Amino acid sequence: MLDLLVVATHPDDAELSVGGILAKAVEEGLQVGILDLTTGEPTPRGSDETRRKETAAATAALGVQYRENLGLPNRKLQADLDARRELTNAFRRLRPRLILAPWEEDVHPDHVQASRLCDDARFWAKLSRSDLDGEPYWPPGMFYYLSVHLRIHPQASVVVDISEHIDKKLAAVACYESQGLAKEAGTFPNPYDDIRDRARYWGWSIRTAYAEPLLAREEVRVDTMQALMAGI
Amino acid sequence: MLDLLVVATHPDDAELSVGGILAKAVEEGLQVGILDLTTGEPTPRGSDETRRKETAAATAALGVQYRENLGLPNRKLQADLDARRELTNAFRRLRPRLILAPWEEDVHPDHVQASRLCDDARFWAKLSRSDLDGEPYWPPGMFYYLSVHLRIHPQASVVVDISEHIDKKLAAVACYESQGLAKEAGTFPNPYDDIRDRARYWGWSIRTAYAEPLLAREEVRVDTMQALMAGI
Amino acid sequence: MLDLLVVATHPDDAELSVGGILAKAVEEGLQVGILDLTTGEPTPRGSDETRRKETAAATAALGVQYRENLGLPNRKLQADLDARRELTNAFRRLRPRLILAPWEEDVHPDHVQASRLCDDARFWAKLSRSDLDGEPYWPPGMFYYLSVHLRIHPQASVVVDISEHIDKKLAAVACYESQGLAKEAGTFPNPYDDIRDRARYWGWSIRTAYAEPLLAREEVRVDTMQALMAGI
Amino acid sequence: MLDLLVVATHPDDAELSVGGILAKAVEEGLQVGILDLTTGEPTPRGSDETRRKETAAATAALGVQYRENLGLPNRKLQADLDARRELTNAFRRLRPRLILAPWEEDVHPDHVQASRLCDDARFWAKLSRSDLDGEPYWPPGMFYYLSVHLRIHPQASVVVDISEHIDKKLAAVACYESQGLAKEAGTFPNPYDDIRDRARYWGWSIRTAYAEPLLAREEVRVDTMQALMAGI
Amino acid sequence: MLDLLVVATHPDDAELSVGGILAKAVEEGLQVGILDLTTGEPTPRGSDETRRKETAAATAALGVQYRENLGLPNRKLQADLDARRELTNAFRRLRPRLILAPWEEDVHPDHVQASRLCDDARFWAKLSRSDLDGEPYWPPGMFYYLSVHLRIHPQASVVVDISEHIDKKLAAVACYESQGLAKEAGTFPNPYDDIRDRARYWGWSIRTAYAEPLLAREEVRVDTMQALMAGI
Amino acid sequence: MLDLLVVATHPDDAELSVGGILAKAVEEGLQVGILDLTTGEPTPRGSDETRRKETAAATAALGVQYRENLGLPNRKLQADLDARRELTNAFRRLRPRLILAPWEEDVHPDHVQASRLCDDARFWAKLSRSDLDGEPYWPPGMFYYLSVHLRIHPQASVVVDISEHIDKKLAAVACYESQGLAKEAGTFPNPYDDIRDRARYWGWSIRTAYAEPLLAREEVRVDTMQALMAGI
Repeated sequence: MLDLLVVATHPDDAELSVGGILAKAVEEGLQVGILDLTTGEPTPRGSDETRRKETAAATAALGVQYRENLGLPNRKLQADLDARRELTNAFRRLRPRLILAPWEEDVHPDHVQASRLCDDARFWAKLSRSDLDGEPYWPPGMFYYLSVHLRIHPQASVVVDISEHIDKKLAAVACYESQGLAKEAGTFPNPYDDIRDRARYWGWSIRTAYAEPLLAREEVRVDTMQALMAGI
Repeated sequence: MLDLLVVATHPDDAELSVGGILAKAVEEGLQVGILDLTTGEPTPRGSDETRRKETAAATAALGVQYRENLGLPNRKLQADLDARRELTNAFRRLRPRLILAPWEEDVHPDHVQASRLCDDARFWAKLSRSDLDGEPYWPPGMFYYLSVHLRIHPQASVVVDISEHIDKKLAAVACYESQGLAKEAGTFPNPYDDIRDRARYWGWSIRTAYAEPLLAREEVRVDTMQALMAGI
Repeated sequence: MLDLLVVATHPDDAELSVGGILAKAVEEGLQVGILDLTTGEPTPRGSDETRRKETAAATAALGVQYRENLGLPNRKLQADLDARRELTNAFRRLRPRLILAPWEEDVHPDHVQASRLCDDARFWAKLSRSDLDGEPYWPPGMFYYLSVHLRIHPQASVVVDISEHIDKKLAAVACYESQGLAKEAGTFPNPYDDIRDRARYWGWSIRTAYAEPLLAREEVRVDTMQALMAGI
Repeated sequence: MLDLLVVATHPDDAELSVGGILAKAVEEGLQVGILDLTTGEPTPRGSDETRRKETAAATAALGVQYRENLGLPNRKLQADLDARRELTNAFRRLRPRLILAPWEEDVHPDHVQASRLCDDARFWAKLSRSDLDGEPYWPPGMFYYLSVHLRIHPQASVVVDISEHIDKKLAAVACYESQGLAKEAGTFPNPYDDIRDRARYWGWSIRTAYAEPLLAREEVRVDTMQALMAGI
Repeated sequence: MLDLLVVATHPDDAELSVGGILAKAVEEGLQVGILDLTTGEPTPRGSDETRRKETAAATAALGVQYRENLGLPNRKLQADLDARRELTNAFRRLRPRLILAPWEEDVHPDHVQASRLCDDARFWAKLSRSDLDGEPYWPPGMFYYLSVHLRIHPQASVVVDISEHIDKKLAAVACYESQGLAKEAGTFPNPYDDIRDRARYWGWSIRTAYAEPLLAREEVRVDTMQALMAGI
Repeated sequence: MLDLLVVATHPDDAELSVGGILAKAVEEGLQVGILDLTTGEPTPRGSDETRRKETAAATAALGVQYRENLGLPNRKLQADLDARRELTNAFRRLRPRLILAPWEEDVHPDHVQASRLCDDARFWAKLSRSDLDGEPYWPPGMFYYLSVHLRIHPQASVVVDISEHIDKKLAAVACYESQGLAKEAGTFPNPYDDIRDRARYWGWSIRTAYAEPLLAREEVRVDTMQALMAGI
């Protein structure tokens, strides 16, 4: 049973978007996993084997305890009933308390489908009297993270301080050399620069060094005033 | 020095809008205060003396440690430089970590002016080399609470669970008999019913019994994933 | 030909969301129908037979003149061309003046698909020179109602006073005992409480006792100033 | 006691923005008035006397039963306590059921101040135990209309069909020859064209010929389904 | 290689929505094309042959250099992988710098699907190591235009002055006599009137005679202050 | 007569917010000015003389041709009629084509008042038959820039590429050593870092290195398709 599960369309999406949050959760002692939906290949300079190695290195850099690839079709991901079943079964097996899923507004069709799949599979996961694997389970928490193929800034629900984890995030990102994410890839601003500098911007927004935003469809609940005031 | 200070336009506004949050903060051991800007009088069935007694009773019901009335002009409150100075001096004296202020969108002119005053005085409070009282002080946190003369639902930033404190809130509200807030005031729905039932609605929104919403102009910062996941 | 047709994903959705509006329309002498898209079964404690009985009881409680179940696949509803054809044919047969359809933003995948189906089938219903059943017909009015699996409050277009019909609504809701909607189901707040209290909140928003919100994609048209001012 | 009162910053604002609604309300037999806050003069080609004559002609063209000018300072209108008192006293004297007030978002400073004044004075109008004129009175309805110095389209709450009253509206507008509103004023599009064509656009939005939008801060209440469905 | 490519669900959509922009681009010397996804037939009074003739006439009226019909299924358009492949191959063949695509919010199911197809195919167009036709190509620019089956006004990103091209736009629209778009079709306001008058409204919004709005998902980039100030 | 005039509440606001735009406009050969409303003093480590020197250095760094200080009261700025007259007279004297003004949403009361003043004075500037200085003049263009005391991201209307001018912007910002804006001021992130990194973020949003956002209340007009497509 996982505390936190990031569902990522392609290997490197989790690192790019919530790498800091992942490193932070691990350091806080939480059980953390990443579920990649597709291999992400082919890409111009990648291969299945290279991507697997890069992914393993990035996973190690973050210290994430669990990672799995669901093997759904890259480039052709569809939020259909078969894919929904696969992801549902994974949710029932991993039983995460909190899911981080891709945000729905994007121009990468795989990301759009992946976002919908997460909502749909989370709902199916609680069904009883079905032919799904395992026991009914309702993942109680769900936030969305920002995909990067559209340069937009939808309203965040919360912004998580990752100042102490920016180095791990960037180290994990830089593992994906075949994806053009090495630190020295190309002229300024290269994709690595973009990742760092957007974390800087969200850090500015909460008066710290680096941060990552999360979105929710529902209200953000506060259980104690102490918790609300912890950062003040 | 206060942990939490609610600035209220009239005595009873704090109880009506954030009575549950106030009771909760007191129970959590925080130092809590209410700063009423005006006496709220005259009203059709109230008087200065009655309102003072009702206010004292409500303050006791919530257990709030500090309450003061700034004596600014009721019905004619203006966000001018004189009123700004008065409120600034109070902020410098009370040095609250978190201020809860009235939200700006309202049709009660006193509430509109009070909201602006809170923003303006918070800024002035940090000024050095001024003829203001006391030492420069920047109240680090500020949220806004919803006033009730407009029946609107702007986007909340966080919603605070007050299920354990709804009784204290309602007891404090009911003290204001001269303001038509007694439990048995008039036919259903009376103002007391409205207060309880709106807390119920916000409770529904976070899957609990009763709650109160808060708004912020800036992002909501999360310092630990444990804190974010506490209620999940 | 119906004045008002509520399209519901599962039997009980119509009662939960617009039970008051249904009872009100019946009392006003309108011809009112409900079209359930699926049986809603299986559920943890339901069965086809139980659900049918509960649905019949709820229909009677509201006094709704017409109810039909389209038999589309529960849990696996898809807004595909076959389902579109089924719903289109029903629209052409029932010829409603006003359709109330589920709102699109939800995490229950069946609700999301049902909302899209309503838009799509309404459009197809007007097609001539097709192999669809019956005569071309454009349902002139369409509003959306709020589904409940997400605790959100999108902007309402109009809010309908159901103060005189809350008892019928709650009586209809309580018929669905197998769905955990009996009045005494579990501890406070149980689902029955949630339904009543949300109607209370929307009632507060229009200064009455109980109400239900409706949403539109287009502007709300006013034909006479008398009509606009009727409730003032 | 008036059914409908339009508060206008300058003589011609009522005609430009809600001339159709005014003519419609008169034809429906309602008691209708216009309260101009200032003379609107000086203007490049106007004078007090000319403006009065034009205003009288426009009032007659619409058939509005009551019109008054409050004589507040043109170009220097301020939402201060003195102006609030003047407008409050007028509200208490005229006792309108529905007020139409200028919308707050504008770049004409007089319009911004006038919008605020309407909210503030409506609130003051209900005060008891004051030195205000007349008896306490709460104008029960309030909508806002769109001023024209900013070319914006905020979300309308309702759109009123004025297809049968566009001629009267345009006739009233054309009375203000000194303000460049005669039909033949300048090249296409002249201000008269703009007024007609925007009414055409709002007419398009509700599938009719001509219309005018109104905005509200609160929800739009529906009292009967028959009323909601009247135009469907 | 085209400078500008309008993707239209049905022949006449391009003319109705961005006919002015098309004529303007042609007059500016740009290479302009229209890619119709379906034949748009059957319709009540049209036929394949009639529609082809009308389309040819409209194309000539605008002076557009290139027009193609992709032959996807009218009324049953689906944003599936097959259609995505077809459109992707067209994008790779035509290599447009700027694509204008239908906006996603509509009640015409074909328009909704077409909008999604454009986003998806644009993304696929850049894929290497695929079995798609031609060479990888990323169409660098993409705006969306407003479809007309919903009478809404989402926030425009830019509004393009077409005052000098309204005649060509209306001439092109009027070619579609079988679609009820002739100038003298029916009583006022007929569809031709609606098209002209909405262009008038958008013209008003930028202080000119006629205009058409475009929407973007991302920010609008300005390269020189001279360009930004050109129209001021 | 100026092409571009930035109205700034305090000396350093123009540099912080639109320093890149100012340098860019100068390099494009435009006549550019800055109008500071107040001295900005006292501040903790500044003095009138120091601030003047820093301002002169920053002005030189940007190459701006004209700078003036209106001498309105710092910390106590009010959007009253006297201040409106002062700013109006400046607008009539400087006759700018495009004004850049502070955005209204802020918690610094001087910024809020300054934003309102700009709208109000722009309107007054066109008044004839007044006792204002000079000739009537309507500044035809107006955008707003983002102030920094609230960490928010309202929707930009356009984002201006300043990649070639970031060095000049940062050089100008660093002149304000007394305001804690020197490059080496304090630990990371210091205010200088924040300014650079936010320009980086906006650069990311338009796929370039550095940029600054502008906001408008009205639509963004496009005069030629060539201009719209220049950056594509």
